[in-house]
Amino acid sequence: MPETPVAAPASRTVVHHVRVEFGDCDPARIVWFPNYFRWIDAASQHFFTTCGVPPWHELEKTTGILGTPLVDTQARFVKTASYGDLLQIEARVSAWRRSSFTQSYRVLRAQPDGTGAPDLIMECEEVRIFAAHRDGDDRAIRAVPIPESIRALCT
Amino acid sequence: MPETPVAAPASRTVVHHVRVEFGDCDPARIVWFPNYFRWIDAASQHFFTTCGVPPWHELEKTTGILGTPLVDTQARFVKTASYGDLLQIEARVSAWRRSSFTQSYRVLRAQPDGTGAPDLIMECEEVRIFAAHRDGDDRAIRAVPIPESIRALCT
Amino acid sequence: MPETPVAAPASRTVVHHVRVEFGDCDPARIVWFPNYFRWIDAASQHFFTTCGVPPWHELEKTTGILGTPLVDTQARFVKTASYGDLLQIEARVSAWRRSSFTQSYRVLRAQPDGTGAPDLIMECEEVRIFAAHRDGDDRAIRAVPIPESIRALCT
Amino acid sequence: MPETPVAAPASRTVVHHVRVEFGDCDPARIVWFPNYFRWIDAASQHFFTTCGVPPWHELEKTTGILGTPLVDTQARFVKTASYGDLLQIEARVSAWRRSSFTQSYRVLRAQPDGTGAPDLIMECEEVRIFAAHRDGDDRAIRAVPIPESIRALCT
Repeated sequence: MPETPVAAPASRTVVHHVRVEFGDCDPARIVWFPNYFRWIDAASQHFFTTCGVPPWHELEKTTGILGTPLVDTQARFVKTASYGDLLQIEARVSAWRRSSFTQSYRVLRAQPDGTGAPDLIMECEEVRIFAAHRDGDDRAIRAVPIPESIRALCT
Repeated sequence: MPETPVAAPASRTVVHHVRVEFGDCDPARIVWFPNYFRWIDAASQHFFTTCGVPPWHELEKTTGILGTPLVDTQARFVKTASYGDLLQIEARVSAWRRSSFTQSYRVLRAQPDGTGAPDLIMECEEVRIFAAHRDGDDRAIRAVPIPESIRALCT
Repeated sequence: MPETPVAAPASRTVVHHVRVEFGDCDPARIVWFPNYFRWIDAASQHFFTTCGVPPWHELEKTTGILGTPLVDTQARFVKTASYGDLLQIEARVSAWRRSSFTQSYRVLRAQPDGTGAPDLIMECEEVRIFAAHRDGDDRAIRAVPIPESIRALCT
Repeated sequence: MPETPVAAPASRTVVHHVRVEFGDCDPARIVWFPNYFRWIDAASQHFFTTCGVPPWHELEKTTGILGTPLVDTQARFVKTASYGDLLQIEARVSAWRRSSFTQSYRVLRAQPDGTGAPDLIMECEEVRIFAAHRDGDDRAIRAVPIPESIRALCT
């Protein structure tokens, strides 16, 4: 990513809530890790819809944008979670570039008694792009410049 | 990870094969990225069983080891894949430490005509531990020193 | 299932809420059907915990019960759903037998404007058992008689 | 389904192979049942591609057909499976109607020593349609008459 990031000092944070289900856990009785990425992807989309960005299928009609596929992700798993746990996923955009952006997440679990600081379960930092289909190939994608209107809604 | 890694110069590589299914793809018609982590987790386990490490439920009886949960992961998505694609996932252990190890993966797609270099779809580097349950809590885990016998089988 | 069912005329209904995510949908842009079974399994568990049944890992310590695996399922898909839709899953136990029970579900979607009858998306009827591990085999299960205390909580 | 089914006496059977992974299993250490539907959906598609039906994205260009969504499913779970198990899924079309068809599956597990009859793990019978998007709504679908060419390939 050679593009120069623009700092997002007062970046807006949107919280997405997840309840861990029995089927999200593996034979070691803890969350099977690919499920964290499922939830983070949902948190990413909720971030945009909460900020007022139209859902992708509406955006596609006016801009060709299909979604925000992942270019790069880094995640650190701090504590385990198991079924019955209620998780909060904080999502924000920590940097905007011309055609890519960095989205950052913290997955937290409130203490069962509701007091004290929540546990940090995992954190994740992603680079994503806004993507459209390539001409003539509806199963390949290309990055498009990030619309100024979307950026304005999200900051 | 303050532990000093031990280089694994001639590290053994095991290939895991995956066929991308319709349901693995999202409305943009490309693989929905959490599925890559599902396949990489399978490739991780196939690495160990191919090397001769017993399945976790057998290992648990003798060593208490439940699996190899993730501590940290970094992934880079290079090209998209879609349904019908046949992927090869190369897995190896690139570093061993006292109680953690680094596992590295490359996800490749052969050219449809079978000639030429395969496409690199994504690559991933993980830190994992060997884990057992904590005393008295069957939903929490702790790292255990990596058994020398396992390390010998895998290099 | 040769056991004689006991009618549950005033059966308790518990509603579980689901938001359909982008990644729950396939290239036809509708929910990929295995996800309905994921949500129905969560609705099944919420039914029991809402009724006051302890989570399975607590129940296991006192009764050996591990969960309520499926014996039989029938589902009818009436309308499609897509991402952004908010679904309500009504769950109830429609029949209790000695060691199995029937759980029934309706998946509904409220009208976007909040008025009128909700759309029926799918409905499902399952036979489940309460299960414990077989002696000496922690990967095989057997049915156990349904504890009277659980039945009392759920009706 | 008021349509009169046409018997398919010598119906073609295609076998799809699946290896059960650690992450496919739940805290009871058995396959979490929604995964069976994931595999059955893959077996359904492999049936068609093995019979020579083009993949859906090619078929869409010529016929508008997007896939074969489910109308109705019935499944019976006979034995449990766990990670490391190798499953064979037999798929066939057991009845064709004008705009819907019945697809039947048996999920089998070979004996570990390779001798004797395989274990029946589950069986499933589905009604599916061939579907295209509704005019002007790319997130809703409608049934289309089953092309004679597809039916000829599959019997």
